Amino acid sequence: MIKFLNKLVCPAISLFFLLNMSNTANADTTVSAEVSFIFNTFLFLICGFLVMFMAAGFAMLESGMVTSKSVSVICAKNIGLFSIAAIMFWLFGYNLAYGIPEGGYIGKFLPWSDSSKIGTGYADGSDWYFQMVFCATTVSIVSGTMAERVKLWPFFLFAAILSGILYPIVMGWQWGGGWLAARGFSDFAGSTLVHSTGGAAALAGVLLLGPRLGRFTKSGSPAPLKPFAASSIPLVTLGVFVLWLGWFGFNGGSQLAMGTATDAIAVSKIFINTLLAGAGGVMAAGIVTRLVLKKTDVVQMLNGCIGGLVAITAEPLMPTPFASIIIGGIGGVIVVYGTKLLFSLKIDDVVGAIPAHLFAGIWGTLAVPISNPAANFGTQLLGIVAINVSVFIVSYVIWAIMKNTIGIRLSREGETKGTDVTETGVIAYAIRD
Amino acid sequence: MIKFLNKLVCPAISLFFLLNMSNTANADTTVSAEVSFIFNTFLFLICGFLVMFMAAGFAMLESGMVTSKSVSVICAKNIGLFSIAAIMFWLFGYNLAYGIPEGGYIGKFLPWSDSSKIGTGYADGSDWYFQMVFCATTVSIVSGTMAERVKLWPFFLFAAILSGILYPIVMGWQWGGGWLAARGFSDFAGSTLVHSTGGAAALAGVLLLGPRLGRFTKSGSPAPLKPFAASSIPLVTLGVFVLWLGWFGFNGGSQLAMGTATDAIAVSKIFINTLLAGAGGVMAAGIVTRLVLKKTDVVQMLNGCIGGLVAITAEPLMPTPFASIIIGGIGGVIVVYGTKLLFSLKIDDVVGAIPAHLFAGIWGTLAVPISNPAANFGTQLLGIVAINVSVFIVSYVIWAIMKNTIGIRLSREGETKGTDVTETGVIAYAIRD
Amino acid sequence: MIKFLNKLVCPAISLFFLLNMSNTANADTTVSAEVSFIFNTFLFLICGFLVMFMAAGFAMLESGMVTSKSVSVICAKNIGLFSIAAIMFWLFGYNLAYGIPEGGYIGKFLPWSDSSKIGTGYADGSDWYFQMVFCATTVSIVSGTMAERVKLWPFFLFAAILSGILYPIVMGWQWGGGWLAARGFSDFAGSTLVHSTGGAAALAGVLLLGPRLGRFTKSGSPAPLKPFAASSIPLVTLGVFVLWLGWFGFNGGSQLAMGTATDAIAVSKIFINTLLAGAGGVMAAGIVTRLVLKKTDVVQMLNGCIGGLVAITAEPLMPTPFASIIIGGIGGVIVVYGTKLLFSLKIDDVVGAIPAHLFAGIWGTLAVPISNPAANFGTQLLGIVAINVSVFIVSYVIWAIMKNTIGIRLSREGETKGTDVTETGVIAYAIRD
Repeated sequence: MIKFLNKLVCPAISLFFLLNMSNTANADTTVSAEVSFIFNTFLFLICGFLVMFMAAGFAMLESGMVTSKSVSVICAKNIGLFSIAAIMFWLFGYNLAYGIPEGGYIGKFLPWSDSSKIGTGYADGSDWYFQMVFCATTVSIVSGTMAERVKLWPFFLFAAILSGILYPIVMGWQWGGGWLAARGFSDFAGSTLVHSTGGAAALAGVLLLGPRLGRFTKSGSPAPLKPFAASSIPLVTLGVFVLWLGWFGFNGGSQLAMGTATDAIAVSKIFINTLLAGAGGVMAAGIVTRLVLKKTDVVQMLNGCIGGLVAITAEPLMPTPFASIIIGGIGGVIVVYGTKLLFSLKIDDVVGAIPAHLFAGIWGTLAVPISNPAANFGTQLLGIVAINVSVFIVSYVIWAIMKNTIGIRLSREGETKGTDVTETGVIAYAIRD
Repeated sequence: MIKFLNKLVCPAISLFFLLNMSNTANADTTVSAEVSFIFNTFLFLICGFLVMFMAAGFAMLESGMVTSKSVSVICAKNIGLFSIAAIMFWLFGYNLAYGIPEGGYIGKFLPWSDSSKIGTGYADGSDWYFQMVFCATTVSIVSGTMAERVKLWPFFLFAAILSGILYPIVMGWQWGGGWLAARGFSDFAGSTLVHSTGGAAALAGVLLLGPRLGRFTKSGSPAPLKPFAASSIPLVTLGVFVLWLGWFGFNGGSQLAMGTATDAIAVSKIFINTLLAGAGGVMAAGIVTRLVLKKTDVVQMLNGCIGGLVAITAEPLMPTPFASIIIGGIGGVIVVYGTKLLFSLKIDDVVGAIPAHLFAGIWGTLAVPISNPAANFGTQLLGIVAINVSVFIVSYVIWAIMKNTIGIRLSREGETKGTDVTETGVIAYAIRD
Repeated sequence: MIKFLNKLVCPAISLFFLLNMSNTANADTTVSAEVSFIFNTFLFLICGFLVMFMAAGFAMLESGMVTSKSVSVICAKNIGLFSIAAIMFWLFGYNLAYGIPEGGYIGKFLPWSDSSKIGTGYADGSDWYFQMVFCATTVSIVSGTMAERVKLWPFFLFAAILSGILYPIVMGWQWGGGWLAARGFSDFAGSTLVHSTGGAAALAGVLLLGPRLGRFTKSGSPAPLKPFAASSIPLVTLGVFVLWLGWFGFNGGSQLAMGTATDAIAVSKIFINTLLAGAGGVMAAGIVTRLVLKKTDVVQMLNGCIGGLVAITAEPLMPTPFASIIIGGIGGVIVVYGTKLLFSLKIDDVVGAIPAHLFAGIWGTLAVPISNPAANFGTQLLGIVAINVSVFIVSYVIWAIMKNTIGIRLSREGETKGTDVTETGVIAYAIRD
C-alpha cells in the first residue's frame, strides 16, 4: 500500500502537465480491477526482465573495460553477484525494505513469502521480481570499480551484505515508506537509492583497496595506455546498449502501474525521456572529448550514456523532452570530468562507475525540483547526503573489517599473473590465428 | 488519425484470408476503449524496445564485420547515430512526417510535443517512441557500408540530416498520409521506407567515398582475405540474432494495434511470417553458397537472414507461411548475388548493407501484390522508384557538398593506421595471452 | 483444447498453495473473453520472443566454449539449425505433436495452417510461435556437444529430423495429449521433453562421433588446458545471461495463460522460482568447485546456472522459493560432477550440454512430486525412461546410418586445420594489435 501511495504525488501532478486528458479518460473507463491487476503485473514482469538483462549489460561492460587478464573473474563476479543478490533479497532484503513501520528506519528480517492480495493491484511476486533486479543492479555497480585486484570471495561476501541488508534498509527509507518518504524526498526510480548507493559502496571499497599495480606511476597521463587498455570495446558497447534497453524497464516499470490510460501515457513519456536523456549523455560526452581531448573518446560516449540515464532516473516522468536531453547531457559531462577528477586523485575506478552512478546520480536527484514542483532542493539534498554518507560509512567499515581479517586484495604475484589465472584458473580469451 | 487509417485496408482484407473468425470476435467483444488504449500502447512500447535493441544488433554486426583496426569507431558511430537520431526525430522528424497534409509532400518543421487523445487509441508518446526507433534503424543501415575510411563527424552530420529531415519526409509520403499513401502504395513495415531508404543513402555515400585502400587491387578474388577479414564472426552472429529478435517488434508493432482479438491474431501471424522469412533467407543463402562456392559461407547465411527479413517487411501479414519462406528465401539469394555484383562493380560495401537492405527491400516491395490484392505492381514500382531515387539524389548531393567542404574521407595515413587510432584513440581489442 | 487442459491440474492445485485469493479474484472479475484472448496471446508472443532469443544465447555460449578454430562453424550451425527447425516445425512438427489421437503415439503429418478459434482462448499462431521456439531449443542443445569435428550438413540433416519428426512425436506424447499425459506424467515446461530430449540426442551422436583428436591422450587432466581452451569466456557469460533471460519466457509462458489474476499470480511465481533456481545452480557450482578444485571455476558456475534452470523447468510453479534454490542448487552440483563423469568416460561433450540438459533434466523431472502432489515418482520415472530411451535409440540409429553413408566426421586434416577453414572458409577472429 505504502509503496504504491509513495509515488502518487508525481502522477497526480503530471496530469496537469501531460495532456489534460482526464476528461477523455473518464469517457469510457471500464478497466475492471482484475484487468488492471493483470496489466500492472505484466508491467512488472516485462520491465523486470528488462532490468534483469541489465546484469548481462554490466557483465559485458565490465568484461570489455578490464584488461584481458581479468576477464574471466569479472564474469564470475557478475553471474555470482546476481545469484547472491537473488538469494539474499529473498532471504532478508524484501521484508527489510517493505516491512518498515511508517517513518521508521529498519524493517522485518525474514524471508519473503507471497501474499498477493488483489487489493494491492498487482501480484506480489511480480513486485518482488521487479525490486530484486533493482537490488542486483546496485550490487553490479560495485564490481567494476574494484576489478583486477580484489579477491573474489570477499567481494561475494560484500555483495551478500549489500544486497541482503544495506541496500534494503536504504531502500526502505524511501520506497518502503520510511523516514525519507515521510520527509517528501523524491527519487522516482533510484538515481540515489540504487545508483548512488552502488557508487558510494564502490568508492568506499576502492579507497581501501588501492589502485592496480603500476596504474599511477606515469602520473598525469590520462589516456589508458596499453598496459591498462580495455580488452574489448565492442563488448563495452554491447553492454551499454543492453543497459539502455534495460533502463526502459527500470524507469518505465517504476510507474508501478499500467492499468489505466493515464498510466499508459505516463509510461510512454518515461520511455521517451529515458531515450532522450541517454542520447544527451552520449552526445555531450562525445562533443566534450572531441573539443577538449581532440579525439572522440568512444569509452566516454558510452559511459556518458550511463551518466545521462542515471541522471534522468530520479525524475523520468515530469521533464519535457528538451529538459531530458539537457539533464542527460549534463550527466554525460559529469562523467567525463568525474573520470578526470578520480584520475587526478589517483583513485583507480576501472570502469568509471563512480562518476557515472554516484556523481551523475547526485546531479539527477538534485535536478528533480526543476521539473517536479512537489520536490524541493533542501529535501533532495537531505536524501542525497543521508543515503550516500550512510552507505559510504557502513561500506567502509565492512571493507575495513574484511581487509584486516580475511583480506580483500590479491597477492602481488596473483595480480601480476592476472586474476583469471589466480582466481578461476580459466583464461578469458584463447584466440589463435 | 491518418497514420491509423493508413493500414486499415490490409487488416480488413486479411479477415477473409485469415480465419473467418469475425463471428467469434463478435461473440463476447467487450474490450473497452480504455483497455484497448492500454493494449495498443503496450504493443508500441514492447515492440519499440525490441526495435530499439536492433541498434545493438547493428553495432555488433558491424563491429564484427570490419577489420580489427576500425572497431572502436564503428561502436562510436552506432551509439552516436542512435543518439543523434533520437534528438533530431524529436526536434523535427516526427512532425515533419505526420504533419503532412493529406496527399502533400512535406510536413511541419517543429519539435514534437505530447498531445495524446484517447480518440487516437494509443498514447501519442508510445507512437513517437516506436517511430523514432524506426528512424534510427534507417540511419544504422548507412554506417556499416562506409566503415573504415569515412570521417566520424561528417558521418554524424549526415546522420542528423537523414534522421531529422530526409527520412521523415519520405516517411510522411506514406505513413504520414502523403501522396504515396493517396496513390495506394503498400509498404506495411518499411521494406522501402526504412530499409531501401537506408540502403540508397549508403549507396550514394559509398560512391563518393570510394573503396578502402587496397581493397580491389587483387581484382576478382571474391572471398575476403586476411587483410579485410571480419574481426569477429560471433559478434556478427549475435548482431543478426538481435536484429531478428528486433524484427518481431518491427513488423509486429506495425500492425499498430493489439486491442482486439483480430489484431492479436494478426500480430501472431506477422510473428510467424517474420520468423519463416528469416529462416528462408538463412537457408537459401547457405545452400547457394554451399553449392556454388563449395563452402557454406556463414557470413552470407547471416546476411541472407537480413535479406529475408527485409523482404517480408513490406507485407508480413498477408502471405501464407509457405509464401513467407519463399519471399525470404529469394531475399537471401539476392543478398548473395547482390554482394557479388557490388564486388564486381568495385563498390566496397563493408557489411553488405546495400544488397540486404536496398536490393532485398526492392524485391519485398514488389512482392506485395502477390499476397495482397489491395496492392498493385505499378504503384509498388512507383513508390520504389520515387523513394529510392529521391533518397539517392538528395543523399548524393549532401555527401558531395560535405566532400568538397569539410571532407568525408580520412587521410591516407589515418586509414592505414586504422580509424580506431586516428579517430577515437582507443584500440578495440587489447588481448594478451 | 487438449494442450490447454493438459496443464490445468497444476494451476488448480496451486490455488491452495499460493494465496487463498479465490475470494478476491471473484470480487471484480470482469475479464471478457476477448480481453483474456488478447492477454493470453500477448503472453505467448512475449514469452516466445524471449525463448527465440535463447537461440542467440546458445550461439554465444557455444562460440565461447569451442576453441578459436571452430567458431565460425558453430555460428553457422546455430543460425542454420534455428532456421531449419522453423521450417520443419511448420512443415510437419506442430501437427505431428498436436494432431495426436488421445492416448495415441503419433499425430498428423502435414503443414500447420492457422485456424484460430476464440474458444481456444488465444491466437493459434501465437501458440505455434511459442511451441516452435521450444522445438528450436531442443535442437540447439545438440550442436554444442558435437562441436569441432562433426560435418556441418549431416548435422543439419539431423536437425531437420529432430525438429520435424522426433521432437514433435515425443512432445505429442505429453503436450499433445498423448499416452504420457494420459498416464499423469508431469513436466510443466519440459525438463524432460525439451532438455533431456536434446541431451539424449546429443549423447547418441557424440558416442558415434568420438572425441576431438588428442582430447584424451593426457588422460586424467580435468581442466581444459590450452589446446582445448574456451575461445571467449565473456561470450559464454553473455550466452548464459541470455539463456537465463529467455528462461523466464520458457517457464513463464508455459503457464499458457495470462487472462486472469490467478494466472498473473502464477506467472509471477514462476518468474521468481526460475530466478532462484538459476541462482542456486550458479552458487552451488561455484562453491563446489572452490572447495573441491581450489579454483572458482567460472565455466562451471555458468553451466551450473543452466543446470539449475533445467532442473526447475519440470515444475516451476509449485515449489516454494526456498525449494527452488535447493532444486536449482542440486542441478548445479549435478553439472559439476556430471562433467567429471563424462570426462572420466572419455566422452567429449565440448560445452557440457549432456550434464546440464540431460542429467539435470532427469533430476528436475524426478523432483516434481516433492512439491506437486498431483505427480508421482513412478510415473515421472516412466516418462523419463520412455522419452530418454526412445530419443537416444532413434537418434543413435539416425546418426549411425549417416555415419555409414554420408559420414558425420570431418577428415583428420580438416579437423586439424579447424572446422572454420574446412567448412566455412571464414576464420572467426582476425584480430591484430
